[in-house]
Amino acid sequence: MTKFTKDYKKKIGLPSGSLIHIGEKKVERPRIRIIDFRDEYCMYREVLDIDACRQYRENENTTWVNIDGLHDVKLIESTGKLFDIHPLVLEDILHTGQRPKIELFDDYVFLVLRMISYDEKQEKVVEEQLSIVLGENYVISFQEKPGDVFDPVRERIIQGKSRMRRKKADYLAYTLLDAVVDNYFEVLDQVELRLERLDEELFEDSSPETFLKIGALKKEMIFLRKSIWPLREIVGSITKEKYNTIDESNSVYYRDVYDHIVHIVDILDNFRETIAAMHDTYMNFVNNRMNEIMKLLTVVATIFIPLTFIAGVYGMNFRYMPELEWQWGYFGVLGFMVLLVVLMVLYFRRKSWF
Amino acid sequence: MTKFTKDYKKKIGLPSGSLIHIGEKKVERPRIRIIDFRDEYCMYREVLDIDACRQYRENENTTWVNIDGLHDVKLIESTGKLFDIHPLVLEDILHTGQRPKIELFDDYVFLVLRMISYDEKQEKVVEEQLSIVLGENYVISFQEKPGDVFDPVRERIIQGKSRMRRKKADYLAYTLLDAVVDNYFEVLDQVELRLERLDEELFEDSSPETFLKIGALKKEMIFLRKSIWPLREIVGSITKEKYNTIDESNSVYYRDVYDHIVHIVDILDNFRETIAAMHDTYMNFVNNRMNEIMKLLTVVATIFIPLTFIAGVYGMNFRYMPELEWQWGYFGVLGFMVLLVVLMVLYFRRKSWF
Amino acid sequence: MTKFTKDYKKKIGLPSGSLIHIGEKKVERPRIRIIDFRDEYCMYREVLDIDACRQYRENENTTWVNIDGLHDVKLIESTGKLFDIHPLVLEDILHTGQRPKIELFDDYVFLVLRMISYDEKQEKVVEEQLSIVLGENYVISFQEKPGDVFDPVRERIIQGKSRMRRKKADYLAYTLLDAVVDNYFEVLDQVELRLERLDEELFEDSSPETFLKIGALKKEMIFLRKSIWPLREIVGSITKEKYNTIDESNSVYYRDVYDHIVHIVDILDNFRETIAAMHDTYMNFVNNRMNEIMKLLTVVATIFIPLTFIAGVYGMNFRYMPELEWQWGYFGVLGFMVLLVVLMVLYFRRKSWF
Amino acid sequence: MTKFTKDYKKKIGLPSGSLIHIGEKKVERPRIRIIDFRDEYCMYREVLDIDACRQYRENENTTWVNIDGLHDVKLIESTGKLFDIHPLVLEDILHTGQRPKIELFDDYVFLVLRMISYDEKQEKVVEEQLSIVLGENYVISFQEKPGDVFDPVRERIIQGKSRMRRKKADYLAYTLLDAVVDNYFEVLDQVELRLERLDEELFEDSSPETFLKIGALKKEMIFLRKSIWPLREIVGSITKEKYNTIDESNSVYYRDVYDHIVHIVDILDNFRETIAAMHDTYMNFVNNRMNEIMKLLTVVATIFIPLTFIAGVYGMNFRYMPELEWQWGYFGVLGFMVLLVVLMVLYFRRKSWF
Amino acid sequence: MTKFTKDYKKKIGLPSGSLIHIGEKKVERPRIRIIDFRDEYCMYREVLDIDACRQYRENENTTWVNIDGLHDVKLIESTGKLFDIHPLVLEDILHTGQRPKIELFDDYVFLVLRMISYDEKQEKVVEEQLSIVLGENYVISFQEKPGDVFDPVRERIIQGKSRMRRKKADYLAYTLLDAVVDNYFEVLDQVELRLERLDEELFEDSSPETFLKIGALKKEMIFLRKSIWPLREIVGSITKEKYNTIDESNSVYYRDVYDHIVHIVDILDNFRETIAAMHDTYMNFVNNRMNEIMKLLTVVATIFIPLTFIAGVYGMNFRYMPELEWQWGYFGVLGFMVLLVVLMVLYFRRKSWF
Repeated sequence: MTKFTKDYKKKIGLPSGSLIHIGEKKVERPRIRIIDFRDEYCMYREVLDIDACRQYRENENTTWVNIDGLHDVKLIESTGKLFDIHPLVLEDILHTGQRPKIELFDDYVFLVLRMISYDEKQEKVVEEQLSIVLGENYVISFQEKPGDVFDPVRERIIQGKSRMRRKKADYLAYTLLDAVVDNYFEVLDQVELRLERLDEELFEDSSPETFLKIGALKKEMIFLRKSIWPLREIVGSITKEKYNTIDESNSVYYRDVYDHIVHIVDILDNFRETIAAMHDTYMNFVNNRMNEIMKLLTVVATIFIPLTFIAGVYGMNFRYMPELEWQWGYFGVLGFMVLLVVLMVLYFRRKSWF
Repeated sequence: MTKFTKDYKKKIGLPSGSLIHIGEKKVERPRIRIIDFRDEYCMYREVLDIDACRQYRENENTTWVNIDGLHDVKLIESTGKLFDIHPLVLEDILHTGQRPKIELFDDYVFLVLRMISYDEKQEKVVEEQLSIVLGENYVISFQEKPGDVFDPVRERIIQGKSRMRRKKADYLAYTLLDAVVDNYFEVLDQVELRLERLDEELFEDSSPETFLKIGALKKEMIFLRKSIWPLREIVGSITKEKYNTIDESNSVYYRDVYDHIVHIVDILDNFRETIAAMHDTYMNFVNNRMNEIMKLLTVVATIFIPLTFIAGVYGMNFRYMPELEWQWGYFGVLGFMVLLVVLMVLYFRRKSWF
Repeated sequence: MTKFTKDYKKKIGLPSGSLIHIGEKKVERPRIRIIDFRDEYCMYREVLDIDACRQYRENENTTWVNIDGLHDVKLIESTGKLFDIHPLVLEDILHTGQRPKIELFDDYVFLVLRMISYDEKQEKVVEEQLSIVLGENYVISFQEKPGDVFDPVRERIIQGKSRMRRKKADYLAYTLLDAVVDNYFEVLDQVELRLERLDEELFEDSSPETFLKIGALKKEMIFLRKSIWPLREIVGSITKEKYNTIDESNSVYYRDVYDHIVHIVDILDNFRETIAAMHDTYMNFVNNRMNEIMKLLTVVATIFIPLTFIAGVYGMNFRYMPELEWQWGYFGVLGFMVLLVVLMVLYFRRKSWF
Repeated sequence: MTKFTKDYKKKIGLPSGSLIHIGEKKVERPRIRIIDFRDEYCMYREVLDIDACRQYRENENTTWVNIDGLHDVKLIESTGKLFDIHPLVLEDILHTGQRPKIELFDDYVFLVLRMISYDEKQEKVVEEQLSIVLGENYVISFQEKPGDVFDPVRERIIQGKSRMRRKKADYLAYTLLDAVVDNYFEVLDQVELRLERLDEELFEDSSPETFLKIGALKKEMIFLRKSIWPLREIVGSITKEKYNTIDESNSVYYRDVYDHIVHIVDILDNFRETIAAMHDTYMNFVNNRMNEIMKLLTVVATIFIPLTFIAGVYGMNFRYMPELEWQWGYFGVLGFMVLLVVLMVLYFRRKSWF
Repeated sequence: MTKFTKDYKKKIGLPSGSLIHIGEKKVERPRIRIIDFRDEYCMYREVLDIDACRQYRENENTTWVNIDGLHDVKLIESTGKLFDIHPLVLEDILHTGQRPKIELFDDYVFLVLRMISYDEKQEKVVEEQLSIVLGENYVISFQEKPGDVFDPVRERIIQGKSRMRRKKADYLAYTLLDAVVDNYFEVLDQVELRLERLDEELFEDSSPETFLKIGALKKEMIFLRKSIWPLREIVGSITKEKYNTIDESNSVYYRDVYDHIVHIVDILDNFRETIAAMHDTYMNFVNNRMNEIMKLLTVVATIFIPLTFIAGVYGMNFRYMPELEWQWGYFGVLGFMVLLVVLMVLYFRRKSWF
């Protein structure tokens, strides 16, 4: 069973805004990557210390700081100081297992998402927390471990072919969001493959294990829903409300992401209904099998119990049983039994029992 | 199983607004038909190249461009350039499997619908995507394959009998919408026929296959619902909000379409409830059959097991069994058995078991 | 099965506003009745031609035109011309099977209701469409067949005893609405009678037919709900919004009708919950009966199978079976069998199986 | 079954506002009690004729007229005339079985509630209709029968200890409402007692009757819900909207009543969920019992059917059956049978069947 | 069964605002603790009489009065007088079992919460009522019994390390709220442990007791939901509306608590769905076991009943039965029987019954 309540005990009794990392340590050393760009210019570096970032903070270019690995509380803290981020935001970044949300501050917008990928080995969906701080001319993204969903974005910025370089930080944030959401589709594709395999198994060889697999899929659906559902409202709010650091001219892009999320929620609904239908089908199979078993028992018992009775009658040891002395008694009884069987078989046929 | 997630992988990592056709190629060559009309004047042409359309774009007549077939990305791209359509809109047009939606742009309204038809051979509902771009004096409609649901509309424009020619592009868009929605009724009619046939089958000859058929219909209902439900909100928004390219005087027509959609949603609800009732009825039949089987088994066993026991008693080989020597022992026992049977039959009768 | 989709095919491809009667022809000749009244004056006529109505249209009295029978498209068309009614409204009037709705036009309010009555012969609820056009000083009502739910209203106008004559057309429309809604109560009363009869049947003599009857009632509930539910919103909108042809001083009367409809919806909810409870009770009966059957089988088998075995043992033909030679062997075995039976009966008693 | 549709037929065809008493006659003679008070002054009388009330109507004191018994239409009519009450309100007062509601008129607020009490003899909840007309300086309350839930209120006014006398009619109305709502808690207490008793019965001695009792409780819950649920909205509207005859300074009291009602609705929800859980538990018991029965049958049959077969084999009359001649054949077979039984018992033990 | 309706009878008939303690007496003597602080200054006292508090009420420091134990009505009353609290508020404080709520008064905000803890001995969740009165420069908290969830808060104030001392009463109230909500997580952790244990039990050794445990957990979920759900709305209202005694600059903290509560509600939803899945799994196990039982019975009966019949045939005592005389008759029949068994075993294998 997945743990729903991450280890909150560490925090109880501490003043709010205390920075403690809650969650697994998923990477050995945090990795800090910086991309600084404007129109024709573009710089890509990997640094060891967040202070190397100060110069980019101050220039007017768009700066994207991407930090993989959250267990180094000091690093997060100094990042927070450098960019003037509220302690409660830092607390949320460190505290993985957050619900997706958006929060507006004076100088920046804070966004928490859940990034999903499909672990083929374990045959299950895994997720990690992605926190984005979107300021006037910078984007800081925090991940639990290095993920390559953003590699095409990096490449596009570096190669400078698409409109990425001409746009500002809010367009960059949209691109990240879009990459995350597009990745959802790939995960859903994997889940759908499993659904199809299960559907086949259901019809060919359904066993109590099939039931457990249906249950496991149902749980995964709940899990995915909880990760994706709040995103709909969040991105919806971006398209409707005005956020200081998001330019209105880009709202058509956010509306596009919004459509994708609505589509994903639709697909999840379809999956859920498909799984519910599988459950029904499984129950129906179980019922039918029970019926089959009972039918067999009933047919066998109904045919042979009366016959056995007849045999029993002529096995009685009464002195005066005239039939026993008859020349054709035995064969007569056998014939009568055959007749009985034929009649009963006809009866069951008419009831279309076999 | 229908695929819910169309092949999204192609797109992952691409910049937004990249034009790629996602979906099946359903027609060999795209077909472009143009109707240009005003009052007394009407021109109908089929062209090979969208550039032939430029002259109609510039005059003040109402122009309807109908493109069947979406796999030719170049064609869509040049259409987009000719009419100044946003790249994200073109992306949506090419990307079939969209959820129905309406979007307002500066010069035009963009509408995505799902066109439904009933494939009699496969006995299932198929659908295709219809995208409509409604500008001040033009309507562009994109279909996946040539469909004849718009033929009567074309004829009405060409013959010039109805009010079509006097009205503008927004009325033309309404007429297309109306034709699509009217077609839904025909599809529902086909579905209802199947419902009726299934209902009969349920009462005459219900088997595990019936259950599977009910399940298939249920899935189709979900499918139809997902296609039609969002339309309600969309057309509702047209009747309430002001869209720049839709004249308020035509809102009475859109209200009429809205009523039809609400009616269709109602019918779908009824279908769903009917199917749920069928499921219940099926389960009840299964239960009753089980009861029947158990009753038969119980009646046979209850009657013959005691009789067999009695026969067994007189089949024992004890030396001293006085009854065996009696003259009428055998017939006495037979008589007692008959009496027992009569009593038990009376008992089961009273319980109204048969 | 009731048809949910009325024959829409007739209309597909026709321009909107084409007048075609969709529905059954329920009366031989349309019947047109006119009542024209003011204060002391009152005129009641039955005319053959709607043109006879022109004079009443022009005077300042309140005029009520009641048309029974919709298959004469010409008649509806000329009525529409006489009173300046929008073609889409006429289309809705002719197209029976409409969902209840209210629509505001410049000079009049258009109202579609479903009139319900209980057909005692077929033991089911039947309905017909009632369309009301309420203008400044006229009410036109269209029915599918002559129904006598409005007779008391006519009488009250003619006799002039109540406040009917002093009030205007909007009060007359209210009175018609009130008559229709009051009639719902009578239908519900009939349905409740059937519910009660079914409830008794359920406890006395429940059979698979009972299940079908419950299912039929459930379907009828859905049918009634669909007819009545939208009315709630409609009348609610009259009490809240301002309609040009309905005077605010009469809104207390519409509020009263609204209360009645809410009450009816409540009763329908109760019916539905009662039917759901009946379903549960039926399923419980089926379960209990199954239990009874299995118990009987188990008791009989558990008692006699071991006894038969004992008899079988002493029916074996071994040469050396000392018990067979004993003087009291037979009676000893019989006694042991009786003892076994007694013990088992006691055991089943303790389990309170009978 | 409780009748949901009270005898509406009486009213059909009558003009609206016609005064007819619908409901049972629950008291022999209507009882009219008047309390007139202000600060130091207080007068309590029981009168026979409502006209005796005229003097109190005209003074500036707060007057509470309490009428028990509604079958005397004349009385209600003259009360209506005396206090200028709208005929539709009088109709509602006389027509018991109303849904709770609040209506604002020019000079007064009209309130319909359902008063609930627990009839210990019949072990069921009974209810009656309480109508309150709250004017500027008077409260008129109409009950179906004399109930003593208001006795403490009367006493408090007469004794003049609490703040009752200093406050106006709106506070008096609040006090009545509060008394009714407090009484709900007492009824719920009785229902909870029954729930507890049923819960015990369920575990000790559940039978098909238990199922019926659960069903009866479920019905009662529906009944209570329908009576109380609308009250929430009503009192909520008092705390939010401004009613002319209710002073804003008293809204803190109405908010208190509102909290109580929300609490009651919560408790009802809990009851409903508890009953649903009982239903599940009952079904589980039924299932378990079925399992027990089937297990017993299977154990007995599985043990004895093979044994009987073996005995049958040695009961055959073949001339050449070597075992029959063996000295220890009989005891060998008996031993083998015992061995079989032991093995099967061990097998069932391992399956933990008993 | 937990009592849902606390003993309301005590109150019926009393004027509103009468102070009566409803609930258990959970502590011997009420305990009053006062903390008075500002910037550098901090005073902590435990007093016997609330009047000792008067001096702190009047100074401008922030004062926190914490009262444990509610049975001393006098104490609550004099506290109310000292701080000018409305009698209805005092009534709510004394009346434990309140639904969580927030109420705005002129000088203060009144807040009722439910504090939850896990009683390890009884293996169930227990709760108590926490009432908070938040004034301009004071916080009064009322608990049913001394709880140590606030100890870290007290320590933080006394040690003066965190920002507590610089902040006002509204921040103190937030800190209390935060401590309560953080504690919910700990309780959920305990509940999750039980869920995990039950999940294991379900797969290893599910028995009817498992069903009862699932039912108990379900009830506890309902209980937790009812305590926590209303809190969401309450804290949400603090972040959105303006309350006079809560400074807007602190709303970021309240938003943080709000996020935690939403998270808790999410976890509760997950728990509920997990429990529902457990219920399904349990039912599936029960069904499978039933199938197993029936299969065994059917296999045994189907194999041995025909064999017994054959043995019965050759146990008949007819004079002329040729087979009986054959040399190898007996062994032939035995061989035939073995053949039959083999065939039937193969048949059941193919049906994969064992």
